Amino acid sequence: MGGDHAPEQIVQGAAEASLSLPGAEIVLVGDAVELGKILPRLRHDGARVRVHHASQVVEMDEKPAEALAAKPDASITVAAGLVAAGEGDALVSAGNTGASVLAVARSWQLIPGVRRAALASVYPTELRRGDKDDPFSLILDVGATIDATAEDLVTFAIMGSAYAKLISKNRRPRVALLSNGTEAGKGPAAVVRAHELLLEATELNFIGNVEGLDIPRGVADVVVCSGFVGNVVLKMLEGVSETILRMARYAHKQNLAWRLGLAALRPALDQLKSVTDWEQYGGAPLLGLDHLFIKAHGRSSARAITNAIKVASKAQAGDLCGSIGRGMRELAERTGRAGVRAPGDEAGVVT
Amino acid sequence: MGGDHAPEQIVQGAAEASLSLPGAEIVLVGDAVELGKILPRLRHDGARVRVHHASQVVEMDEKPAEALAAKPDASITVAAGLVAAGEGDALVSAGNTGASVLAVARSWQLIPGVRRAALASVYPTELRRGDKDDPFSLILDVGATIDATAEDLVTFAIMGSAYAKLISKNRRPRVALLSNGTEAGKGPAAVVRAHELLLEATELNFIGNVEGLDIPRGVADVVVCSGFVGNVVLKMLEGVSETILRMARYAHKQNLAWRLGLAALRPALDQLKSVTDWEQYGGAPLLGLDHLFIKAHGRSSARAITNAIKVASKAQAGDLCGSIGRGMRELAERTGRAGVRAPGDEAGVVT
Repeated sequence: MGGDHAPEQIVQGAAEASLSLPGAEIVLVGDAVELGKILPRLRHDGARVRVHHASQVVEMDEKPAEALAAKPDASITVAAGLVAAGEGDALVSAGNTGASVLAVARSWQLIPGVRRAALASVYPTELRRGDKDDPFSLILDVGATIDATAEDLVTFAIMGSAYAKLISKNRRPRVALLSNGTEAGKGPAAVVRAHELLLEATELNFIGNVEGLDIPRGVADVVVCSGFVGNVVLKMLEGVSETILRMARYAHKQNLAWRLGLAALRPALDQLKSVTDWEQYGGAPLLGLDHLFIKAHGRSSARAITNAIKVASKAQAGDLCGSIGRGMRELAERTGRAGVRAPGDEAGVVT
Repeated sequence: MGGDHAPEQIVQGAAEASLSLPGAEIVLVGDAVELGKILPRLRHDGARVRVHHASQVVEMDEKPAEALAAKPDASITVAAGLVAAGEGDALVSAGNTGASVLAVARSWQLIPGVRRAALASVYPTELRRGDKDDPFSLILDVGATIDATAEDLVTFAIMGSAYAKLISKNRRPRVALLSNGTEAGKGPAAVVRAHELLLEATELNFIGNVEGLDIPRGVADVVVCSGFVGNVVLKMLEGVSETILRMARYAHKQNLAWRLGLAALRPALDQLKSVTDWEQYGGAPLLGLDHLFIKAHGRSSARAITNAIKVASKAQAGDLCGSIGRGMRELAERTGRAGVRAPGDEAGVVT
């Protein structure tokens, strides 16, 4: 029910997935009357897509915690509960990001050793990687864990590496730590300490610190940072087109050749904006919980939803959560520490 | 002696300032033989520019702490000492940023109530501000204090506001807090707490949180953040031209019209890179110490050095450090707290 083009495009994406993904069984959670009007009109495999009723919907602009409290039968809450109860393996939503992350964080369990979940985004780079020639690097966290400790950052490195191995078929993903300089001593205390811990993590391919500009350069396959810095940097990368137009207007108000050049480039820059819009690539995975949640873009078309379902299906088939669990166990065995979940903690909220 | 075009361009900038700034007296600190060969060749006011010998120089690529330890007679150390001893009011350098910040932080005193110094950078915006129609906003900290507390961020707001009032003649500068969203609750704990404290600071014109993209939009006159985030964001803003070229190449390798458009814009983007290069605008002030240090860009020409000397002279004439001290006293009186300097702290280092 969530997303700018819901429920039509969501149902259509699910209908297509029921035909193209022979292994998948899809449960559409939402208003049964409304969904029941759309689904029969579409080509689909009736044996592998069905509707589960939920009477309420969290709107895109609602405050997450308040919306979930006010709407106990919200489709996202019901869907998260179905997965928690074993009625589903993974969840895809194009709805309110904060509410959906909060709903799954409350309903699902953290993988043992993981203290906080991370939302990962993909960012397009010139460089291709892995057996799939994947042109994306992964950045995590981008908003689920605003204040990340050194141990959280190491966990994010393990989770991002496992995801890149499985989804990009990248056998040895290069993992980097986002900082304000490439030297080991650069950054806040948590980043400096994480650098030391990652140097000891020989099971990872840690290449050191990178800066924000190294992300579009494709220097790393997995870029690790706190949710605060990740969210700030990602929004700036998404806004490069706007920034350059502003700078250019500042710099050359008087220069005709420049003005003409900018006018010519304007449509290209507008188009570029959509290219750098991370969420359109099959969605952003939330990593660290015992099931996979894929947050599809609010503007998702049917095709984007089908892609997100494909990624979820691939992650499930490859046992992503199991891989992350093994990575955390290896870490605990190597360091002699078990990951500690702070009492009363709950996964952060992106809005 | 510091900077890519030192000492020639530095001496020339000082010589010009001796003619154009009747109130200023300039001491050039460095190799007396070398400087003594350059100065006599240039038009200057001999009564107001003189040379003070220092036998050593910190090179641009040296590690700050190690270089200062190995070179006790480095020009930056000698110059900082002269100011500390009352032989100068302010200091300008185009040399190694980390070494110069460290040298003045060790030699000068923090203004009472200030726990950590902040390096402020100016960033060009379309919007003009103040009686001077200043097209720059001020961002601080951009690298002196990597881990900033909520109290540090409030101090930066007071210091940045005092600077904008004096240098941009902006009577009521709009002060904003950089976060990952505009809502009050957004950001790490230190940012959320700083937001609350700034709402109480009615002596400031606090407009709330802004995001990274709001900086080129000119939404605020003074943007406050930790040195870590400020440094990351600033470098990304400086790199927009490169980022857009990479994204465009990623997006449209096959599209001829795009390739032609990019080829046409390439020189403009290259030029833009220098426009967005913050340090070229008369330099970045280091705020919070009992004297003003202006860090001029390493690539500074004579003109940039003259500009930096003018800004230093203006700040001195307007008693910038006194204004900051009054702001800190007002804060202490209002909150009933005196600023606390953590024992053993010293200003951070940018490299």
